[in-house]
Amino acid sequence: MPFLDDNFLLTNDTARRLYHDVAAHQPIYDYHCHLDPADIASNRVYDNLHEIWLEGDHYKWRAMRANGIDEQLITGDADPYDKFLAWAQTVPYTLRNPLYQWTHLELRRYFGIDTLLNADTAPGIWEEASRQLKELPTHAIFEKFNVALVGTTDDPADPLDYHEAIGPLGIDTKVVPTFRPDKAMDLTNLGAFNAYINKLLKTAGRGIQTPDDLLAILDDRHAAFHEAGGRLSDHGLSALPDAGCNDVEFKHIMSNALRGEAVTRHERQKITAYMMRFFAGLNHERGWAMQLHLGPIRNVNTGLYNRLGPDIGCDSIGDAQQGHGLMRLLGTLSAEGRLPKTVLYNMNPNDNYLFATMAGNFQSAPTPGKIQFGSGWWFLDQKDGMTWQLNALSNIGLLSRFVGMLTDSRSMMSYPRHECFRRILCNLMGADVESGELPDDPGMLDKLVADVCFNNARDYFGIELDPRYN
Amino acid sequence: MPFLDDNFLLTNDTARRLYHDVAAHQPIYDYHCHLDPADIASNRVYDNLHEIWLEGDHYKWRAMRANGIDEQLITGDADPYDKFLAWAQTVPYTLRNPLYQWTHLELRRYFGIDTLLNADTAPGIWEEASRQLKELPTHAIFEKFNVALVGTTDDPADPLDYHEAIGPLGIDTKVVPTFRPDKAMDLTNLGAFNAYINKLLKTAGRGIQTPDDLLAILDDRHAAFHEAGGRLSDHGLSALPDAGCNDVEFKHIMSNALRGEAVTRHERQKITAYMMRFFAGLNHERGWAMQLHLGPIRNVNTGLYNRLGPDIGCDSIGDAQQGHGLMRLLGTLSAEGRLPKTVLYNMNPNDNYLFATMAGNFQSAPTPGKIQFGSGWWFLDQKDGMTWQLNALSNIGLLSRFVGMLTDSRSMMSYPRHECFRRILCNLMGADVESGELPDDPGMLDKLVADVCFNNARDYFGIELDPRYN
Amino acid sequence: MPFLDDNFLLTNDTARRLYHDVAAHQPIYDYHCHLDPADIASNRVYDNLHEIWLEGDHYKWRAMRANGIDEQLITGDADPYDKFLAWAQTVPYTLRNPLYQWTHLELRRYFGIDTLLNADTAPGIWEEASRQLKELPTHAIFEKFNVALVGTTDDPADPLDYHEAIGPLGIDTKVVPTFRPDKAMDLTNLGAFNAYINKLLKTAGRGIQTPDDLLAILDDRHAAFHEAGGRLSDHGLSALPDAGCNDVEFKHIMSNALRGEAVTRHERQKITAYMMRFFAGLNHERGWAMQLHLGPIRNVNTGLYNRLGPDIGCDSIGDAQQGHGLMRLLGTLSAEGRLPKTVLYNMNPNDNYLFATMAGNFQSAPTPGKIQFGSGWWFLDQKDGMTWQLNALSNIGLLSRFVGMLTDSRSMMSYPRHECFRRILCNLMGADVESGELPDDPGMLDKLVADVCFNNARDYFGIELDPRYN
Repeated sequence: MPFLDDNFLLTNDTARRLYHDVAAHQPIYDYHCHLDPADIASNRVYDNLHEIWLEGDHYKWRAMRANGIDEQLITGDADPYDKFLAWAQTVPYTLRNPLYQWTHLELRRYFGIDTLLNADTAPGIWEEASRQLKELPTHAIFEKFNVALVGTTDDPADPLDYHEAIGPLGIDTKVVPTFRPDKAMDLTNLGAFNAYINKLLKTAGRGIQTPDDLLAILDDRHAAFHEAGGRLSDHGLSALPDAGCNDVEFKHIMSNALRGEAVTRHERQKITAYMMRFFAGLNHERGWAMQLHLGPIRNVNTGLYNRLGPDIGCDSIGDAQQGHGLMRLLGTLSAEGRLPKTVLYNMNPNDNYLFATMAGNFQSAPTPGKIQFGSGWWFLDQKDGMTWQLNALSNIGLLSRFVGMLTDSRSMMSYPRHECFRRILCNLMGADVESGELPDDPGMLDKLVADVCFNNARDYFGIELDPRYN
Repeated sequence: MPFLDDNFLLTNDTARRLYHDVAAHQPIYDYHCHLDPADIASNRVYDNLHEIWLEGDHYKWRAMRANGIDEQLITGDADPYDKFLAWAQTVPYTLRNPLYQWTHLELRRYFGIDTLLNADTAPGIWEEASRQLKELPTHAIFEKFNVALVGTTDDPADPLDYHEAIGPLGIDTKVVPTFRPDKAMDLTNLGAFNAYINKLLKTAGRGIQTPDDLLAILDDRHAAFHEAGGRLSDHGLSALPDAGCNDVEFKHIMSNALRGEAVTRHERQKITAYMMRFFAGLNHERGWAMQLHLGPIRNVNTGLYNRLGPDIGCDSIGDAQQGHGLMRLLGTLSAEGRLPKTVLYNMNPNDNYLFATMAGNFQSAPTPGKIQFGSGWWFLDQKDGMTWQLNALSNIGLLSRFVGMLTDSRSMMSYPRHECFRRILCNLMGADVESGELPDDPGMLDKLVADVCFNNARDYFGIELDPRYN
Repeated sequence: MPFLDDNFLLTNDTARRLYHDVAAHQPIYDYHCHLDPADIASNRVYDNLHEIWLEGDHYKWRAMRANGIDEQLITGDADPYDKFLAWAQTVPYTLRNPLYQWTHLELRRYFGIDTLLNADTAPGIWEEASRQLKELPTHAIFEKFNVALVGTTDDPADPLDYHEAIGPLGIDTKVVPTFRPDKAMDLTNLGAFNAYINKLLKTAGRGIQTPDDLLAILDDRHAAFHEAGGRLSDHGLSALPDAGCNDVEFKHIMSNALRGEAVTRHERQKITAYMMRFFAGLNHERGWAMQLHLGPIRNVNTGLYNRLGPDIGCDSIGDAQQGHGLMRLLGTLSAEGRLPKTVLYNMNPNDNYLFATMAGNFQSAPTPGKIQFGSGWWFLDQKDGMTWQLNALSNIGLLSRFVGMLTDSRSMMSYPRHECFRRILCNLMGADVESGELPDDPGMLDKLVADVCFNNARDYFGIELDPRYN
């Protein structure tokens, strides 16, 4: 089959029918990404492929380092065009890496370019893409890819002014903030923590006397996010702590932290346990969904971290134990009747079955699929990772109730990942039909595909969309 | 291929030949299940699909919860027919879950019904199945599925009176009890433990003065199980402890426990280590096989556990470390020359390769496959789980010596799971032949299939069967 | 497809072209094995299949034990021919185990024998193979399989005299020693440790006064290995410790150990951490590559270990946590600018994604693929294990920069494992082309295959080869 053929990844007739007749027509509901709301508010025009592809994409940076490219051409101050050439020269070495497929799928779907990118073709592709990008501002990209919703990732200390600016623009794509309060409970570095708290207080426009005031302010910010359309929180941890923490302990430890006094590792875990329960309570109270992204080890390359800081492509899949921490948080919340809708994402594919079974333990009426086992994420955002997640979910839970794919991306060029996901989903369904494991019942199959691609997320998160999407 | 076609799951010619010519004709040797011996003794007639399908099947309960069904219609006191309707309404949402295949395979194999179950077809299916169930009592089901042996799961405190009643019935299916003494070493809740000990003493008809008396009583019960035909023990733990415990420590800790005095976590682990060695010794002495089911985290949903108790579908695959505990128990027993035949089952598919290699370390003459890596279990009792187990066993050990499939089920409707297993086995063998990885030698292939389906279990457990099965 | 057909494992046209046109013609670069340099120096002639197959192959011993063969016929003093017969009788029971394919592939590729081995055919095969072995001494085997390089595994205490003897023989196969200093940091048994140190001192021809002298001697031996052509070290551990150790601690603990005074488990971990950093520094200084083989639990069968010692086929895949230990060692070295080229191998397939991401965190110019995620190893040296490694590497890193396969074998009969690896690699590439996931661009595909089979290892390790291989 030709590379990226209309039927690529679709190896059977049922799959082809499901994809082309059903999946391809669904809107995109991208409920979790890292797009910058400022770019959306300003309807940013990207000048060239460096801006839209290489400015912030640590997936590509990793590949370039693995290809022996000098850091100067990756995160350094080299000329943007030279950086693009270094990337183009790396592309042929990424065969079988998702970057190879993404790169060429993006060139096709955004610009209609089907030339293979390499050192020779780089200048022509740069020129043509730059030309087309001028006519493809951010909002046009949303339109082109039929994006019904974008959920950005935002800090409680963020005043949400960009989000406020987006509303009046009247674009068809709903843009909502996500409440991600990781820094408000990270006591690893107390200097950084207190600097953060000051920023938060500034946004909140008030001061704090006690740890409870901090909680009150976070509640206010949560309410402000709600006001701005937010209906999801997000929390990133290596693992949930298997620790308890009562009010007295919280006040004691947090008071010390706010005074900059040393906090032990065990105390940090208590704070995390306490505040996660607190955030879950806010989510439950306002009918939100809580996302838990568990499992990475971050900033692993001490040398590069010291030079460049976080989020530069030096994070790993970790192997912390996840079972008891999850059980502790979800079990406590369920016993208290305060368990919100929850999406569990694991970083290590080993944890797929644990996460899938854990989600199943806490399902309850009336919300179908109340606890979701989330889509393959970050390093798992490729055919194998998605397939494993879809199969684990199918074997252990209800695929039919799945809220589906999200990009989790920092890049405006990532919408074709939804296409990849949909092809993979349809191919799995189709293969089961071909082997006699599923009935060839278009009514059932089509409904499941449309639901997983769009309808389930729309119904589960319950955010009002532009009327064309209802 | 039509849904559940004669050749479903069989994707190549060799597979189809192996299944239809060899596997399909083998008797079922179901050496581990949770059928109630009382139902067998009374030759229970099931009134309707609720009784035989929904009364105790926590797999279905989980699916219904995930579908947003109210608990009232799951484990509550709703009308049985309404519960069945709630299940029927859930079935279409279980596409790709093993429940979807099981449900329809069971309807076909038990009742010849090939209608897809859903809210619309539910009334007709209920009626037809109820009608047929009247003429399909328990013993007739055994006969219909050619069941050579059933191994139930029984507590040492069980007087085995139902088992005694079964023998004189003269049915062709051999029914044997399995010795499962988990409660006799579970010191988590000392009130429950001592209540259990009292029950055990009542069955044994004697009292105890010292911890050694407890061991003597357990030995007596093991002997009584042997007398009743039992040749297997079974032990369910999250993980084997990597702990030692000498006689003095055992007596000290157990004396405290029997007096209801607090026992630490570390002491509980010592007791588990000591008693597992003790049970292994009993098994070795009487030529039994010991089953170790390792890995779940149980009763995870604190809220529902408080309302409904255990075994209601709120258990998880866990991620405890397994290596050193296994090494400790099996290594100690092998050094002492007291290692019995052993079947190792892991709950977490991540542990497949660890378990497969661990089994291989303790093989010894003269029993071929003395240490077995057991079949995919519980959440892994589906195509992926079985395939992974079969492949791990094949890559690391000797598939040809495998004792094969068991239902582990609470339901009389589960025998088609042996069919699924056999199809998967034949398909793997056939695919290897088609790719040139195995010789197309019917003598060797057919023997392996027949051995894994039936002969190996018959020879390994060494239980006398009805003459038609020898 | 006939068993071991020319196209076995090659299920599509692209795969067949890639294998037969490209992969099959590449020389073998076996950079890590356990061949005995004495056998190479003496150009050993093997008398029969027992000598070349069964003398030291614990894979086969495990299979024989699992088949119920008496230990006498495995590692005992039974007649070599009887041992061979016991193996031949076991072979049909190894269907689907890699041993079944290896056995018959070796018979074909070494002797042109395509009879299936079993009890009946054993005498004829023994005779024919013995006859041919007389004309197939060690160097002829190297020639037959186009072996460009062999990296043996050697202890620092080894005087390297066999390696010195090999050079002047003028064979086309480059043979280099690998520096494996595990015993110099293993304080588990201080008696064994000090006996080892005495042996090391004898080889070094000097004594030690302080722990620093030990380091100086190891540095000298490292230099001697360099002189003898060595460019790789190798280190086998269950896991890297997540522990720090400064100079003062090292001196204190090591002084105690050298005096035979008790060392705690925590102190042993500190020594390992310290010395691994030391060895890494030596490797960095001399431009070597460092291999880390992480994950086994060894000598699990206490009974058999007491009788037969180590390396007799009683080792397991372990489940120790790997993330933080790896991060600690590699992170520290990268921050110090002393991170050498490194190849990471994991024993547990669960760790594939952790290892693949961890390698990616430490890539840096100018060496492409500086940190390698090594090939499927030991229990993972089969189709599934290799496929998982290749896919994890492809998804997370750059397959194109992979240094490829090694035998890790103790047997002169293992070169067909490179053939298996190459077929698997070509088949994966070809399947991606067929599904439209890779472009059908022979220039790119052929280059990748040739690079992974040979060129990358040649360039990465930078060892001078016979001119015909450049």
